[in-house]
This record gives sequence, C-alpha cells and structure tokens, in this order.
Amino acid sequence: MSMIDFILGRTLSSRDERAEQIGPSAGVPIFGLDALSSAAYGPEAALTLLLPLGASGVPYILPVTGCILVLLAILYFSYRQTIAAYPNGGGSYTVARENIGEQAGLLSASALMIDYVLTAAVGISAGVGALVSAVPTLQSHTLAMCLGILFIIMMINLRGIKEAGALFMVPTYLFVGCLFAMIAIGFIKTLAAGGHPVPVEAMPTLPSATTVVSLWILLKVFSSGCTAMTGVEAVSNGVRAFREPTAPNAQRTLTIIIVILAVLLAGIAYLASVYGIGATSPTKNYESVLSMLLRAVSGKGIFYYVSIGSILVVLSLSANTAFADFPRLCRIVALDGYLPLSFSVAGRRLVYTEGIVVLTFLTAGLLILFDGVTDRLIPLYAVGAFLAFTLSQAGMVLHWKRQGSGHWRNIAINGLGSIATGTATIVILSAKFMEGAWVTVILIPIMLFVMILVKRHYAEVEKEISSQVPVDFAHLRAPLVLIPIAVWTKVSDKALRFAYTLSQEVTAIHMTAEPESEQVFEKNWQEFAMRPAEKAALPTPQLVILKSQYRHVLGPIVDYILKVERQNPDRQIAVVLPVLVEHHWYDYFLHNQRPAVLKALLMLRGSQHIVIVNVPWYLSA
Amino acid sequence: MSMIDFILGRTLSSRDERAEQIGPSAGVPIFGLDALSSAAYGPEAALTLLLPLGASGVPYILPVTGCILVLLAILYFSYRQTIAAYPNGGGSYTVARENIGEQAGLLSASALMIDYVLTAAVGISAGVGALVSAVPTLQSHTLAMCLGILFIIMMINLRGIKEAGALFMVPTYLFVGCLFAMIAIGFIKTLAAGGHPVPVEAMPTLPSATTVVSLWILLKVFSSGCTAMTGVEAVSNGVRAFREPTAPNAQRTLTIIIVILAVLLAGIAYLASVYGIGATSPTKNYESVLSMLLRAVSGKGIFYYVSIGSILVVLSLSANTAFADFPRLCRIVALDGYLPLSFSVAGRRLVYTEGIVVLTFLTAGLLILFDGVTDRLIPLYAVGAFLAFTLSQAGMVLHWKRQGSGHWRNIAINGLGSIATGTATIVILSAKFMEGAWVTVILIPIMLFVMILVKRHYAEVEKEISSQVPVDFAHLRAPLVLIPIAVWTKVSDKALRFAYTLSQEVTAIHMTAEPESEQVFEKNWQEFAMRPAEKAALPTPQLVILKSQYRHVLGPIVDYILKVERQNPDRQIAVVLPVLVEHHWYDYFLHNQRPAVLKALLMLRGSQHIVIVNVPWYLSA
Repeated sequence: MSMIDFILGRTLSSRDERAEQIGPSAGVPIFGLDALSSAAYGPEAALTLLLPLGASGVPYILPVTGCILVLLAILYFSYRQTIAAYPNGGGSYTVARENIGEQAGLLSASALMIDYVLTAAVGISAGVGALVSAVPTLQSHTLAMCLGILFIIMMINLRGIKEAGALFMVPTYLFVGCLFAMIAIGFIKTLAAGGHPVPVEAMPTLPSATTVVSLWILLKVFSSGCTAMTGVEAVSNGVRAFREPTAPNAQRTLTIIIVILAVLLAGIAYLASVYGIGATSPTKNYESVLSMLLRAVSGKGIFYYVSIGSILVVLSLSANTAFADFPRLCRIVALDGYLPLSFSVAGRRLVYTEGIVVLTFLTAGLLILFDGVTDRLIPLYAVGAFLAFTLSQAGMVLHWKRQGSGHWRNIAINGLGSIATGTATIVILSAKFMEGAWVTVILIPIMLFVMILVKRHYAEVEKEISSQVPVDFAHLRAPLVLIPIAVWTKVSDKALRFAYTLSQEVTAIHMTAEPESEQVFEKNWQEFAMRPAEKAALPTPQLVILKSQYRHVLGPIVDYILKVERQNPDRQIAVVLPVLVEHHWYDYFLHNQRPAVLKALLMLRGSQHIVIVNVPWYLSA
Repeated sequence: MSMIDFILGRTLSSRDERAEQIGPSAGVPIFGLDALSSAAYGPEAALTLLLPLGASGVPYILPVTGCILVLLAILYFSYRQTIAAYPNGGGSYTVARENIGEQAGLLSASALMIDYVLTAAVGISAGVGALVSAVPTLQSHTLAMCLGILFIIMMINLRGIKEAGALFMVPTYLFVGCLFAMIAIGFIKTLAAGGHPVPVEAMPTLPSATTVVSLWILLKVFSSGCTAMTGVEAVSNGVRAFREPTAPNAQRTLTIIIVILAVLLAGIAYLASVYGIGATSPTKNYESVLSMLLRAVSGKGIFYYVSIGSILVVLSLSANTAFADFPRLCRIVALDGYLPLSFSVAGRRLVYTEGIVVLTFLTAGLLILFDGVTDRLIPLYAVGAFLAFTLSQAGMVLHWKRQGSGHWRNIAINGLGSIATGTATIVILSAKFMEGAWVTVILIPIMLFVMILVKRHYAEVEKEISSQVPVDFAHLRAPLVLIPIAVWTKVSDKALRFAYTLSQEVTAIHMTAEPESEQVFEKNWQEFAMRPAEKAALPTPQLVILKSQYRHVLGPIVDYILKVERQNPDRQIAVVLPVLVEHHWYDYFLHNQRPAVLKALLMLRGSQHIVIVNVPWYLSA
C-alpha cells in the first residue's frame, strides 16, 4: 500500500459510487451538523437582544420562536419539494436559475458560496474559542489549532463522504441525545412543579429593563433567532450523495434534521421562559444559555459536563457541512460553465477534490487574516443564507405557476415563505449592515460578475476552436527546423538526426560568450554535422552564431526565431530543443533549465506557426 | 523604464564590467565592514573573559592585544601575497587547493561558506538587537525587521557592487572617524594627566577577583579576541571586483582595512587599560565596552550618541561583507565544477545573482529558525574563518617552497602564521565545542562531501554525453506518431496536419468517460480526419479508444504510449500534444493543464525513443 493510499484511502472505481452513497443516518451528521449546531447559538442570539427589556423580556422568546418555527416549517416543505423536483442537487441555485433566470441563480450561488466559507471559518474558530476559554494556556496557539482542525476536516473529506459520516455520527447523536434529555427532564420537572419549577442551582439575576418593547426590537430578535436556520439548505445541494431511492432518502434526512431542530428550538425557548433564564452580558461573567439551562435542570454533574463537551465538539465540526456542500455546489455551477470545469472532476475517493481544496484555502485565509478569532465575521453570516432562501422560495412560486393551476396551496406556502425570508434578509441586512454585512453586499456581486466572465470566456473559446470542416491534407509542407545548440554532444547529435526526419531545411542556432568556445563549436559542427550530411547527399544544416553583450542567452535566440517566423509567414517553424532529462530530482539544480524557459518564452511570445519539439536525452548518471 | 529596471537598475553590458569595478574608497566599506565592525565586539569578548580576574585582569588586555596584532600583521602580509599570486580571487580556497590539494581547498571553501551565512545572520540580528534594546516597543517585530533588512541588503547587492559601495561609504567612514576621535581624545587626556586620566563620568566598579591568572585563561582571552579578525580574508576573495591595476588596488584596500583595524584594536586596549575599564556582566546592568570608553573620554554628549549610532549601523551592515564575498566564492568553486554552474553566471547588474539569492534564503532560514535572536550562533562563528586562515597559511608555505630557495623569510612568516592560526582554531574549537561549535564540525564535512559529489556528477554527465563521432544520417526513419485528443477542435485539426508532415503512421488516442461523447468523437473523427486522408490518398490515421473506470485520464494514455514504445523498439515515437495557449495568466485556471502534466509524466517514465511535440493554439479570446 502506498503512502498516499494510506493517507487518502485507495482509489475508488467509478462503479463504487453507489457503495459510497449514504443513507439518512449518515446524512444527518454530514448535512445536518450546521443546522443542528445552530440550536446552540440561535436562541442565545435572540435572548441577548431581549436583554434590554429585563426579566419581562424573556417570555417574548415564546412567540418569536413560534414565528421562527413557522418559517422553518415553510422552508421544510419548500426544500422537500425542491429535492423531489431537482434530484440532481443544486438547491437554491438550480431552483432560482431554472425558474427566475441566470442572474438570480448566480446571485444565490455566490451568496451560498460566501456563506459556506464563513460557516467553515466561524465554526472552527467557535470550537477552538470554547476550548481556549476552558484551557486558557492554549490561548497563544489559537490560530495553529484552528488550522490543524481545518486540515483534519479537509483530510477526512478527501477520504470520502462515507467515512466522514461514520466519524461524525457519534458526537452528533450524543449532542442531540443530551439536549433531548435536558428538555425532557426540564419538562417533567415543570409539570411536577405545576408550571413553576425551581432551578437546581442559583441562576444569575436578570438586569432591570432599560427600554420598553417595540416592533423593531421584536423584529431584530426574530432576525437574530433566524441564524438558527442557516444550514437548512444543505441537504438540497447534496441530493446526489444519497443512495437509491435518492430523493426519498434525502427528504427523510431533511425531515429528521428539521424535526430535531424544531424540538430543540421549542424546548429551549420553553425551558428558558418557565425557568426565567435570559442571556448574560457577553462582557461580564458570561455564561451560555445552554449552560444555564443544563445547570437549572440537573445541576453541575457528569451529565452537565458530557453535554457541554458534546456541544463544543458539534460546534467545531459544524464547519464540515460547508465541506460537504461547497464542493457539490461548485460542481453544479461548473457543469453549467460558470466556474472552471475542474471543479466538476471527481477525485480518487469520488469527492470533488478541487472544491474541498479551494474551500480549505479560503477558510485558512480568513482564519489567518483574523488570527483565528472570527467573532467579527458573524454579522457577515446569515445574509447569504437568507438571500438564497428568498430566491429559492420565489423560484418555487414561479415553478408552481408554470405547472398550471391547482397548485394554489403550494404557491401560498412558498409565497408566504419568500415574503418571510425576504423580510428576514432585509432586517438582518439593516440590523447588521454597519457591523460588517456590507462586506457581503460588495462580495456577492463581484463573485457573480466573475462567474459570468468565466462563462463568457468558455463560450468564446468554444466558438474559436470548434471545428466542423475536414482536415486539409492537400497542402502539407515540411516545416523549417531551428535547433538551439550550446555545446556539441550526443544530445545535439540526437536532436539533429530527429530534425532531419522532420524536414531537410535545418538551421542550428549557437549562442556564444567567448571566442575560444565559438571556434571549438564551429570545428565540431563542420566535422560532425556538415561533412556527414554532405556525404549522405543531404542538404547541409545551416549554422547561425548569435552574440550578446548582455550575457542573455535566451532573449537573442527567441528574437531570432521570431524573425525567421516573420520572414516566412507561410511556413511552420519547428523549434527542436535538445533536453537533458535528469535521473534524480536533485539533479534539477545541477543543470540549467534553459530548454524549459525557452519553451515558455516561445509560448508567451510566439504565434500559431511555431511548434516546439522536445528531444529528450535520459541521463543514466 | 520598466518596473524591473527601476528596482534592479538597467541591465549592464558586459563591456560595463570595467565601469562597475571599484577602487579602495568603495572597497573598504564593501569588503571591510565585517572586519572593522568586529572592533566593536572583539576587545569586548576578550575583556569579558578577563572578568574573573577582577580589576587586576584588565591590564592583561595589552599583551593579549599585542599578540592579536602580531597575528593580524602575519595575516596581512600573507593575504597581500595571496592577492598578488591569485589575482582572479578565491583567497584561502584557491591557495589551499593549488598548493595543498583538492580536499584542503574544499575544506576551506566549506568553512568560509558556512561562516558567511553565519556572518550575515549574526550581523543583521546584532544590529536589530541593538535597536530593539534602545526602543523596546519594537521587540515583537524583531524577526520582521531582520527579514526586512536582509531583503534591503539583498536588493542593494542585486543592483551591483558599485552602488553598494557608494551607499555604505558614509556610515563606515563615520564609524571609523568617531572611534579615531575617541582614541585621539583619550590619548591626549592620558598624556595630559601623566598616564592616569580621570573618567568624565563614573564608571561601573569591577567585581573582585574570583580566580588567578593561568595560561588557559589567557589562551581563551586570546582566542575570543581573535573574533576581531574574522572578515580579513574578504578582500582576497573579491580581487576581481577592483579596477585596474587590480591587484595593487586590492592590496591597498587590504592595507587600509588592516591599518584601521589595528589602530582601533590597539587604541581600545590602551584606553581600557589606562581608564581601568573592564567588561560588565551581560546579565546585570550591561553596558558595552565602547559605550563606557566613549563616556569616560568625553561624557554622554552629542558625540557619544553619534558614535553609538554609527556603531549600530555598521554592525547591522556588516552582513553586507558576506553578500559581497559569498557569491564570489561560490562562483570560483562553481567554475571548478564543485557547485552548480549557474553560480558562475553574471546577472543583469554583473553580480552573481544566484549566490546572492541562495545566501539570502539560507540567512532568512537561520533568522526564522532562531526567531531573529542569533546569540546562540556566535560560538559557531570564527571556527570557519580560522580554519580557512590556517589552510591558507599552510598553503602559502608550500607555495614558497615550490618557488625554490631564497624565500625562507616568507616561509617563516607564513609558517608562524599557520601555527598561530592553527592554535587559535584548536583553542576556539575546544573552548566553544560544547556551546555549539560542534555543529560547524559536522556541517563542514557534509558540505565538502556534497561538493565532491557535484563534481563527480558533472564528470559522469560530461563523459556520457560527449560525442566525437559524426552524425549518422544514413539510417533516418520517420517516427511513429501518437496524438492524444479529447475533443475534436481546430487545435486537434492543426496537430493532425503537423503529424502528417512528420510521418505517415499516425494514431490518435482518445480517452472516454461517457459513451455519448465517445460516439460524437468517432463520428467527427471519421468525417473530419479519416475521410479527407483517404481522399488525399494518404494512409488513414488510426484511432485508439481507451476507457478507465478510475476517471484517470493521463495514466492510461502514458501506459499506452509506453506499450507502443516497447512493441517498436527500433522506432522513435513522436507524441504530438495539441496545446491551448492562454492569453492571460488567469486563464491558466480555466483550462486543464493536461498536456503539461502528460509531458512531465512521459519525461519521468519515458525512454530515449520518445520525442514530445507541442503544437500550440494561441487563443485570441
């Protein structure tokens, strides 16, 4: 087994694709980690905005969560239908492109791509941040740990989706189990206490109110809570990863994810309101809402620590959803010609290697730029996801309309959904514009523009090189041959022989620095090249000697070749390069790389008439 | 003027070489900075080792400095003669190689090369260290500043030696002027005070003696003081940089450097002993000896600050001597075949670019490895220089012996010098072996071994490819042609036409993934390639279709080409590659780079019979 097989796993045959496909149990950790982990910060974000209302603010979490659950239900039905309608995957991008138009599709794709990069960066740095606040001595290694986790996630994803699913199953289900247990215990205790349970441990007291409730505050609370919904589109982009029957398996996975998420959100909101637990100030004695709920329900025992541990792991693994989806989204966009085609090439483990690697680099760039602390990226987040939601809902409305009448219920659901997600997008944007969401507003159109340019470039190249005429074999003519030769050796001997099989018009170009070496070369040339050609009754090869006072060797040779080309506009010019091929990689440094540089220069400055022939001599030394 | 001309200066013609050559006034800063700046730490190193003797130890500085000056004089006469005997430069390397033997020469070269890398790293970090101790807020930027200075020194040296000399002249002569003034003022005050001058400011009191004087202590003091002599060999390596008359100009430069250095060393030792100034402990209230002397002589006025400033600048520029010498040494060694020949190529500004760049990378590596604080490298330093001194002296003894009788005085001087420097080498090595000099002892033979391997490789290649037989034009035969084609386009059309000018035995190789595209290709092939060939009464081109279940495209093509090669051991195989040439660099990412990878694979796995033909299609899009 080779090293690379050991690290990345053996190469999978295309026929293995079926075996690599997954079912709902692996699908939940792979495509659901992002959505499920957001239960850990969505309610918290909403409660934080209710802080100014004091203790009387906490109960508002119930109606707000109710609205969020309604929106979640709409998104659920909408994406269920999307999966059925577009079993090849693509989610918002495909729906928007096919129903609204190219630009809407690309807008959605750009928004999602930017969002995935942010998800990966924020997820990893949130996990590491939690670890660092638990073990402060690790503080100075924050960035190194972020990059280490990023590297591990990349390697796991390069090994294939099935292994990733198997690996992430345990922490995901542990996380879900712990939170379900917390909600169940809390619910039973509340019932037993007649609706007014007493926390096991003392809770921090809420600050007194500094303002009164208003619609704007509630809208902001709602939009912050909506961050709990990012990641819901993941399954729709990855339908192709599921085993037969593809669409139903994907739908089942989506159902499981949404039901778990809804139970978590409802349960957390309910417990927070009955226990009267609000957020704490992030600057003074901060404690997360989930930590307080766990303490209130069961105290700081083993259960508490296991639950907190699983939350940390799931947060830092939430980045994996981006790794499952980003490459698949890029693949679909690339197949449509808006990104380099190489994004659609399946690698040795049947994953889209280029997408994974590009996502890793972009994420690493963000992590390095922000030194591993990505709090400032959080406002940029969610705008993309909600823009994509809105476009996807609007696309579905048009989709149903085109299916003819009789779909008014679907139209109503998706219409309502698109209005709700659209409103959320606007609220999120305006609430977070100054904090950094403006960056997204600038980046999305740039991405969009680049994708359109890529498509146009491919179309132009296609138009330029497509050929529908027979090859013209009637006017074949041997090329003019030019051979740059520095010293007379077996390598030049071989190149000259090959040149004569190409054409009988052969010219050698010799660059000289010192007069002595010039004389030696001319003598060799006459004796070993010209005289035998005469003897064989072949046209003698010509010799051109170039001199340079600037010690440049290649410039004058390229200039000479281009001059010959200009003087013979109707001829092809074959430049024959004698090349020493080294046996060991370190020999590379011992021999000049002039043939390779000359080739690159000719490719850069040459035109259609120049053909480059490498005649290699394999060193045995 | 192009960007590169602005940064590096316009390209110099080889005829400009004379104009780029320098005289003694520029030669002193270029080749003397290393030697002169060592006046700032040599005496200090000696006085530090006298500390255990207390106040009674300070006077020993006089006899020790006397010995050092005698050794310096011997080295001076020796290198003066070396310059005259070897006007092509090379110093210790050439002297040892020509008079003692190959291994001695290489030993000397390895020792000097390692020494130059250390000089560059230690010089830069000493300068930055001094700046940081003056402005502690810069502490966290130490490494960045070191790399910045390294980069600036590299750029200055890439612009050519003349500009470097002009730039470094002011700080060098300011430094020399200030120290001369200090010595003169101190000397006059001493005379006026009848030999017992009173310091202008209070000096730190010396600790009481903890041990008595012994020969071992004095030997260690001597060998530490000898670090003041490193850099003396610099001129002898750089003789070619001087203008006509070359050797006398180099000798004059050496004379100036040695005289200034001798005056500085003698003056500092004299003032230290009459003012009773010893070293201070590096760990408690450290103050450098030169700082104390300046304060004792004239107080902490403007003169003090200007002098201290010039010392700092000269220390950090002392790295430049390595940049002037290392590339020249590498050039001479490369011309003898012990290093890649590219070290001997003069770049656009007539400097040996590769040597400068390699030195920059090695120095940067050291600086990064030690985080910009290279104190721990100081023990490694000086071993190399003294080993080279010893070999050079010994070589000169043999040189005079071979000149016949009548050179007994020269033999005596160089013999004494070689014994003295040899002793110093042994003392330095044994005194500093455990502190790190053992690294040098390991590195020097490794370098030596690598250089011998390089020489052997060149000899083997030379033997393998040298050709002294006429070209055999009698048995020319057109090659078999193979063309990998993915899609039928104008690019493949052009490649096929060129293939038929090469040979009439042409086979296209098509890799397929999907059956539909295979059918399209076969249809195109018959219509656009086979039928017109038949019409033109040419042998029809063959088509081979390869399938792979692993989605690998290039592996099967290479395998097929190698199979054809094995089946036709007497034929040449021309692989014609249709290549799209992109117009913009960013297009690189939009098209697959398969032709380039295929070429690399064939070069890696192919044999003498395969020739690679690039038929480029220049995109206008």
